[in-house]
Amino acid sequence: MTISAAVLGASGFAGAELLRILEAHPEFSVTAAAASSQVGKPVAGAYPSLASVAHLSFVSVQEVLAGDAEILFSSLPHNASMGLFADGRPKVVDLGGDHRLDDAAQYEKWFGEPHASPESLSSWVYGLTEFHRKEVAEADRVANPGCYPTAALLALAPLLSAGLIEADGIHVDAKSGVSGAGRAGGEGFDFCSANENLSPYAVTGHKHIAEIEQELTLAAGRPIRVSFVPHLVPMNRGILASCAAQATAATTQADLSSALAEAYRDEPFVRILDGDLPRTKRLSGTNFAEVAVRFDSRTGRVLAFAAIDNLGKGAAGQAVQNANLMFGLPEAAGLGDRPLLP
Amino acid sequence: MTISAAVLGASGFAGAELLRILEAHPEFSVTAAAASSQVGKPVAGAYPSLASVAHLSFVSVQEVLAGDAEILFSSLPHNASMGLFADGRPKVVDLGGDHRLDDAAQYEKWFGEPHASPESLSSWVYGLTEFHRKEVAEADRVANPGCYPTAALLALAPLLSAGLIEADGIHVDAKSGVSGAGRAGGEGFDFCSANENLSPYAVTGHKHIAEIEQELTLAAGRPIRVSFVPHLVPMNRGILASCAAQATAATTQADLSSALAEAYRDEPFVRILDGDLPRTKRLSGTNFAEVAVRFDSRTGRVLAFAAIDNLGKGAAGQAVQNANLMFGLPEAAGLGDRPLLP
Amino acid sequence: MTISAAVLGASGFAGAELLRILEAHPEFSVTAAAASSQVGKPVAGAYPSLASVAHLSFVSVQEVLAGDAEILFSSLPHNASMGLFADGRPKVVDLGGDHRLDDAAQYEKWFGEPHASPESLSSWVYGLTEFHRKEVAEADRVANPGCYPTAALLALAPLLSAGLIEADGIHVDAKSGVSGAGRAGGEGFDFCSANENLSPYAVTGHKHIAEIEQELTLAAGRPIRVSFVPHLVPMNRGILASCAAQATAATTQADLSSALAEAYRDEPFVRILDGDLPRTKRLSGTNFAEVAVRFDSRTGRVLAFAAIDNLGKGAAGQAVQNANLMFGLPEAAGLGDRPLLP
Amino acid sequence: MTISAAVLGASGFAGAELLRILEAHPEFSVTAAAASSQVGKPVAGAYPSLASVAHLSFVSVQEVLAGDAEILFSSLPHNASMGLFADGRPKVVDLGGDHRLDDAAQYEKWFGEPHASPESLSSWVYGLTEFHRKEVAEADRVANPGCYPTAALLALAPLLSAGLIEADGIHVDAKSGVSGAGRAGGEGFDFCSANENLSPYAVTGHKHIAEIEQELTLAAGRPIRVSFVPHLVPMNRGILASCAAQATAATTQADLSSALAEAYRDEPFVRILDGDLPRTKRLSGTNFAEVAVRFDSRTGRVLAFAAIDNLGKGAAGQAVQNANLMFGLPEAAGLGDRPLLP
Repeated sequence: MTISAAVLGASGFAGAELLRILEAHPEFSVTAAAASSQVGKPVAGAYPSLASVAHLSFVSVQEVLAGDAEILFSSLPHNASMGLFADGRPKVVDLGGDHRLDDAAQYEKWFGEPHASPESLSSWVYGLTEFHRKEVAEADRVANPGCYPTAALLALAPLLSAGLIEADGIHVDAKSGVSGAGRAGGEGFDFCSANENLSPYAVTGHKHIAEIEQELTLAAGRPIRVSFVPHLVPMNRGILASCAAQATAATTQADLSSALAEAYRDEPFVRILDGDLPRTKRLSGTNFAEVAVRFDSRTGRVLAFAAIDNLGKGAAGQAVQNANLMFGLPEAAGLGDRPLLP
Repeated sequence: MTISAAVLGASGFAGAELLRILEAHPEFSVTAAAASSQVGKPVAGAYPSLASVAHLSFVSVQEVLAGDAEILFSSLPHNASMGLFADGRPKVVDLGGDHRLDDAAQYEKWFGEPHASPESLSSWVYGLTEFHRKEVAEADRVANPGCYPTAALLALAPLLSAGLIEADGIHVDAKSGVSGAGRAGGEGFDFCSANENLSPYAVTGHKHIAEIEQELTLAAGRPIRVSFVPHLVPMNRGILASCAAQATAATTQADLSSALAEAYRDEPFVRILDGDLPRTKRLSGTNFAEVAVRFDSRTGRVLAFAAIDNLGKGAAGQAVQNANLMFGLPEAAGLGDRPLLP
Repeated sequence: MTISAAVLGASGFAGAELLRILEAHPEFSVTAAAASSQVGKPVAGAYPSLASVAHLSFVSVQEVLAGDAEILFSSLPHNASMGLFADGRPKVVDLGGDHRLDDAAQYEKWFGEPHASPESLSSWVYGLTEFHRKEVAEADRVANPGCYPTAALLALAPLLSAGLIEADGIHVDAKSGVSGAGRAGGEGFDFCSANENLSPYAVTGHKHIAEIEQELTLAAGRPIRVSFVPHLVPMNRGILASCAAQATAATTQADLSSALAEAYRDEPFVRILDGDLPRTKRLSGTNFAEVAVRFDSRTGRVLAFAAIDNLGKGAAGQAVQNANLMFGLPEAAGLGDRPLLP
Repeated sequence: MTISAAVLGASGFAGAELLRILEAHPEFSVTAAAASSQVGKPVAGAYPSLASVAHLSFVSVQEVLAGDAEILFSSLPHNASMGLFADGRPKVVDLGGDHRLDDAAQYEKWFGEPHASPESLSSWVYGLTEFHRKEVAEADRVANPGCYPTAALLALAPLLSAGLIEADGIHVDAKSGVSGAGRAGGEGFDFCSANENLSPYAVTGHKHIAEIEQELTLAAGRPIRVSFVPHLVPMNRGILASCAAQATAATTQADLSSALAEAYRDEPFVRILDGDLPRTKRLSGTNFAEVAVRFDSRTGRVLAFAAIDNLGKGAAGQAVQNANLMFGLPEAAGLGDRPLLP
């Protein structure tokens, strides 16, 4: 069996990572790569290391849609994929933000414009695999989570579900490598500006807050709001979410550890750390996550951490993980990369 | 007028930064540099760029104490400076952690051993210059703040003093460049381990918590406890403290901005940012701090930030700022370095 | 078929890369990992990402030698492997420098001490695969080339063989990422020293010169001496050799390009660049090499370049490539890693 | 005495470094900063750390030319400054490449277009201070050397003048931090592309070759051609030139060392290293150069090195050094910055 796959947005970083992962995938085979700015150019020019796409030229999104790929991995900019995928075949994993929110009003609030296809939103499943595995497996449309939400939710959702942290006052301090800004980059992302520098950005207004709150609300069974502060860190890849929340009355370290253990016991891609704490480098280039939780008994606060590769579990890795489920393949198929050390 | 100065711990990073700053100081002149591991070796071997110490050889701490330097900058490891400085002359700025806490019990709690000279603690002034300028100016013994506390306190103390944030539930998420670990470094601090990596460490138990709580308690007029999570970031210099706290009832962004404006109106080394947010690179090699505050109206939380150079305002810069005050010199004397761009 | 493999020096960087590669190898299975400083400790403590060694504990070198692994990958420090491997089974790929030189006198000259087992040298094949494929395939003992020699030889040997460059006056300016210094590292290799820094080292006396000259002599059919200057570059992985030599009388760019094309036409791991020039990042984590050559008609000089990953084609990757040949496996087995972008 | 100075191209990296240096200069005072893309905007927006320009707004180049600044530091793009400066006042130091070559034909050859003002070239002095100090002091027009030529010439010129290296076959392998590409940067200079990467570029055709050959020809008293290979290194600042040349017949290490010692004996900004080798970090942010030379007796080759900060001695630092001479000021005025350690 070979399943034909197409990548939309194939010139961006997430698109590149999709191609890199799919190169080694036992079942998916890339038959088309769309990059609007490079239509007609050989894919090998952009990716000389990837033999699997050496025979392809970049095409337009429209050409892919008119083709017969059985799965589309869409990594288009915000706003570009809504309404793009008509009903029925092929299956789609959308790595962009257009289909992650159930509520079109929330979309409008956070993205600053009305959603173009609000009626379609209910047909999409939010693909944080560990929490929606069953729905993903049955879905034709999966909205792949954002990188920050993936990390924050992996750290927090099990604790909230288990009633171990208070619903009010959850704080997420997140840090991302520079590839999180995309290949376009721009001012502040040139080497000389980003190197040897560290700063917060988009404080109080980052679009990923909507996703985090939607899913934590689901986990808690009551409305959740979080404060969220993202930071830019001088490294290529990696996201670390450092979360703080108030413990509920009788919470102990043992309770917290058990909640993670239970949530992730059989998860192939989540590593629970005990004595150790998450480190982004240990996950770089992979679909793995590292999570840890600490009870600060002096303050009654719970400190929960998750690290991922923003382009791996935070984007292309999780997209392939979801696609595997959508086609009934082994969940880890093609996701065998091991992180470089050093 | 030339004031003779000696540096203890002159082979460490803070010692190096002291020598670098003092090289250009108009009044202080380094007459001795102690480094126990290098006694007898020429200082120029370690610091070929510094003409002012080219004629010196490293000596022992004891030799410095027996000498006649008018001011000692002590940057010795924890535990090495307590009880070292007898009453009277010379003046001392201690960059280490031995004399920062008023309460010997707190010292024992956080450092895991009794303080060797508890009766001496009351003779030391905690030298976060902006909050203790008057005491520093009159002091003979100044305990220079830790790097993390300097950043956290600059961000939080004015807001707490002004009653704009709740005393409970203050959280500090701090990030430091690798030089914060000192020159000794060790496992995890080699280039290949630290580069392209990011991780929290010392969660719930970092010694700097004691200082932060001591000073915030002072600012609030009631006992304060904070949760504190430090992180290691792949860059040489820079600390960013990203703080979150619950706003008190009627707090507005205007209130928060006013509190910073009032606190730092005439401060030569604190820059309040409005539209912008702190960036560590803009302070690298200087004694400056950048602070900013944002009200997150959705969650009622206050997000306060401060960035410094951990070796500048977080160590050697502030030490010289304090020494300037102790000798009645212009507070900014010798602190004219401008950050490199890029 | 599964072939049992053991790694000696499994706690070093090359050892780590061997384990990482072998994790995904279809035929070799790691049955023992020796690390003298960690005997008895679980391998998973050092390599939590590697499932294939999760059941192992580190053992001593002696225990491995007494065992029944069919192939040994030895990555021990200089001087530690000479005389270690008795005749006969198992097969050995030695990644260290003890068996690379044919001539014990050369060893003594460059390493500063007599070779302990000079009579054994003739039983070792120098494993720069592209130039010694046939001997490697028939060998039981392969001396894996050094990282610098691999790069320098890939750039120069075909040009010298083809008579396109003069034998006199060959110069190699080489640059390495910090992992080239090994995990031990030491002074100058801590993050703060190596970061934002660049310097030559070991000028005129680097041990790798001996290998380069031995193999270039072979390629030229007459004695070759090269000047060689290595540099330390602030990145984890990657080596670039930038070579300069005088062109022989009628040499043209076309001749040079043809020589590379002919030498590497069917090579699975050597990519010849034409318009482009080698970049280390494009090879990171892989066994690939990029080579390019330019004729500087103004000066009559030939500028030849090769980039590799010092731990990949420069160490563990090439070791596995050689081992594949030694066992009659497909040469690229287990070497399918694609470089991260970004 | 205060001398009014204007900076043209004040939004680029060299312009920024000029403003940073001049901030602390005892005699020059910046009265105008021209940046065509930012006319009318406050300079403080771009340079919040620089108090000395806080009162200025960016102006046009024309406005500066019509003004009365006594010295112009011009850091405009190639081609933008030729013909711009009419005869007479004010004095000009041009950091760009338009006026460095004596011979307009050479300009055309290397820059690919005719020089717009060939007759003006003779009125410019090539400002590599150490070799043209007297002419600079008497000049009204100084063409500040390129960054690569500064390093290459500091390493090679004294050896060539002294007849210790052969005129034929000189090779320069140069490495630059990313700021050498200027603030505009562009593809390949974003953080994710440049980080953890290393590559040669512009092989055989870099414009700086013309300058290097012009000055080495002067030093040798006969026509010199060099092969030159620049590289991009993942760090913000710093250039290292690693040069190789054939020793003349009787050359010894002692001869080479003496030549450097003699050439730089009284130089305030050139540090000759003996046991040590140049490191870029030790010069970062300063006007210093480190030089070293080694005789490789095995090959008869001379290996000569020079490291500088490409924005310091390689641009803005040397420009101020030259301007100091042009106004009869102490040569080191305003150039007292010490490198950060770490």
